[in-house]
Amino acid sequence: MRCNHTIHSGRHHLGWDRSIAPVLTVRPGETVALGTVDASGGQLGPGAGLADLAAMDPGRVNPVTGPIFVEGAEPGDALTLRFREFTPSGWGWTANIPGFGLLAEQFPEPALHLWSYDAGGTAPMLYGPGARVPLRPFVGTVGLAPAAAGPHSVIPPRRVGGNLDIRDMTAGTLLHLPVEVPGALLSLGDTHAAQGDGEVCGTAVESPMEVAVEIGLAKGAGLAFPRFETPPSSPGPGDAGAFATTGVGPDLMQAARDAVSAMIDWLAGRTGMAPVEAYMLCSVCGDLRISEIVDAPNWVVSFYFPRAVLD
Amino acid sequence: MRCNHTIHSGRHHLGWDRSIAPVLTVRPGETVALGTVDASGGQLGPGAGLADLAAMDPGRVNPVTGPIFVEGAEPGDALTLRFREFTPSGWGWTANIPGFGLLAEQFPEPALHLWSYDAGGTAPMLYGPGARVPLRPFVGTVGLAPAAAGPHSVIPPRRVGGNLDIRDMTAGTLLHLPVEVPGALLSLGDTHAAQGDGEVCGTAVESPMEVAVEIGLAKGAGLAFPRFETPPSSPGPGDAGAFATTGVGPDLMQAARDAVSAMIDWLAGRTGMAPVEAYMLCSVCGDLRISEIVDAPNWVVSFYFPRAVLD
Repeated sequence: MRCNHTIHSGRHHLGWDRSIAPVLTVRPGETVALGTVDASGGQLGPGAGLADLAAMDPGRVNPVTGPIFVEGAEPGDALTLRFREFTPSGWGWTANIPGFGLLAEQFPEPALHLWSYDAGGTAPMLYGPGARVPLRPFVGTVGLAPAAAGPHSVIPPRRVGGNLDIRDMTAGTLLHLPVEVPGALLSLGDTHAAQGDGEVCGTAVESPMEVAVEIGLAKGAGLAFPRFETPPSSPGPGDAGAFATTGVGPDLMQAARDAVSAMIDWLAGRTGMAPVEAYMLCSVCGDLRISEIVDAPNWVVSFYFPRAVLD
Repeated sequence: MRCNHTIHSGRHHLGWDRSIAPVLTVRPGETVALGTVDASGGQLGPGAGLADLAAMDPGRVNPVTGPIFVEGAEPGDALTLRFREFTPSGWGWTANIPGFGLLAEQFPEPALHLWSYDAGGTAPMLYGPGARVPLRPFVGTVGLAPAAAGPHSVIPPRRVGGNLDIRDMTAGTLLHLPVEVPGALLSLGDTHAAQGDGEVCGTAVESPMEVAVEIGLAKGAGLAFPRFETPPSSPGPGDAGAFATTGVGPDLMQAARDAVSAMIDWLAGRTGMAPVEAYMLCSVCGDLRISEIVDAPNWVVSFYFPRAVLD
C-alpha cells in the first residue's frame, strides 16, 4: 500500500534508549512503511548453517527500525497502531539457541531450520520434517522508548511494549501502547512469518519483511499495559475478533491478574457494567493466554474477550 | 442419544477416594449417559439469591457422578473419553465467592448472576447487564481416583484429572486420563454451559445437564498428565481442531514446561521428528493457554497444537 512515509530497514537501532535520535517525525493519522531486518540482524541468511548460529553475536540481535517521533504524544497518552499490511520476504529461520527457550535445560544443543515460503501466503509454509504451517506475518517487537534514561535490553518486553511476541500483531489488529516520553519514539522489528502463543523454543519463523502501519494518538489514555483489538478471523461467519489486555512482568500469576484487571476496567468503562459484573462475564467467555514465555525476565499474559459477546 | 448405561444425578459423591464403591461397571467401548447436579450440589436453584450464596456449605460443593469401574483398566493405562452429547438444563448461575477467584482481593463482596437460556443452543445466553454469551456446554470436573489412599479435595485438579475446568471438554473432544487404580474409577460433574480459558472469577455458567460419554481404554499409555483432542470448530473450512497436552500443578511456569514437553514427546512419537524439530515446530504454531487459574493450589496450562499442520 502507499504510505505517507517510508523507512528503510537499514535505519535500525539495538536496544531501547530515549536518547536515540528519531529517524522520522509523523503526525497522528499518518501511515509509515517500515522495512525490517530479521532478528539475527542479518547474521543469518538463506544459506546459514549451525556454524553461523554458533558464531552469532548476541549483542547484534533483534534490531528495530526507527525511532519515529509522533507529534503531540506525551507521557500518559497511548499510541495507537493499526497494522495495515505485511509484505514478507519469502525466507526465514527458526532456531534452538542454547540457554534460551522454555525448555532450555532439555535442549542444550543448537538447531536451525531454514524456511523458504510463498510470500503471497496462498500455500502454507513447508517444514522439512513433515508439517505445513500457515503464513501469518506479524511484528514480534513493537514498542516505545521507556522513560528511564540510558540503554535497556531489547529482549524483555515492558509496559511500553517492545519484544511482546504476541502472535496477533497481524494485519488489521489495533495496538495501544502507553507513552512514557515526549514523541513516544516508536520502533518495530523482529518480524515473524508465524508463531504460536508462548514462542516456546524462543524463536518463531524469523523473517524480514515490510510493515505498513497507521499511527494514531489517544490523549490521556492512562494505560497500565498494552492492549489490542484483533479483527475477524475470516470475512464469513465465525470468530468476530477480540478485545485483549495484557500483563507484562516476571511472574505469570501477577501478569494474569494485571491482564484480567485491565479488561474489567475496560469493560466497565465501555458498557457501564459494575466491575464485579464484568469480572463474572470475563470468567464465562474470556480467554487467558500466555503470549510469550521466553523473553526473560518478563513474560506476557494476554486476556482475550470475544467481540461477538458485546457487538 | 441412546447409551449402554444411564446413571442418575443422585448417584454422586464428594471428593475423590479410591475406596468409594463403583455405581456401575462398564466394558471399554460402551457409552454412558450421566446426569449431573450443579457445582453447588443443589444448594443454589433458579430462584437463589445472595443469602443462599452466603449460606452455602462449602463441604457440599462440586459433587461428581460415579464412580464407574472400567473393566481391564490398570495403573499405567489411559482412560479415553469421547464426549458425545450434552443435554443442558436451561438454567445456571455464576458467582463471585469471597476468597475465591483470580482477583479475590479486588472483589471481596459476594455477587450472583442467574442465567435462563435456550437449552437448544440456537440463541446465545443473555447476560442481564448487557452481553450475549454463546452456549458451549462441557464438563468442568472429570477425573479418576488417585492412587493415594484416603479422601482428596475435589477443588484442585491432579494428573488423574478432576476439576480441570478446561473449556474444550465439549461434544466431540477426546480426553485421555492417566489411570492410577484398578478399574480407573471415573466420575464427572461440575458441568458448565460456557466458560473462558482461566475461569477467572472462579465460577463459570454452573449448570446441571446430562452428559453422554463413550469410554475407551489405551493400555500402557504411560501418560504424565491429561491430554485431549478437539474437533473442528465448524463443519466448513476454518479451524480443524487441535491436539492438546496439559501440565497441572501449583506453578504456572512448570505447568507450561510440562505441557510443552508432553507435546514434543507426542509429536516425535507420531511423526518421527527429532524432539528438537518438534520443539521448534511447537514454537511456530502451538498455543499456550491457561485453562484454569482458580482451583487452588493447582493450575492447568494447556498447549494446543493445530491438527491442520499435520493432517
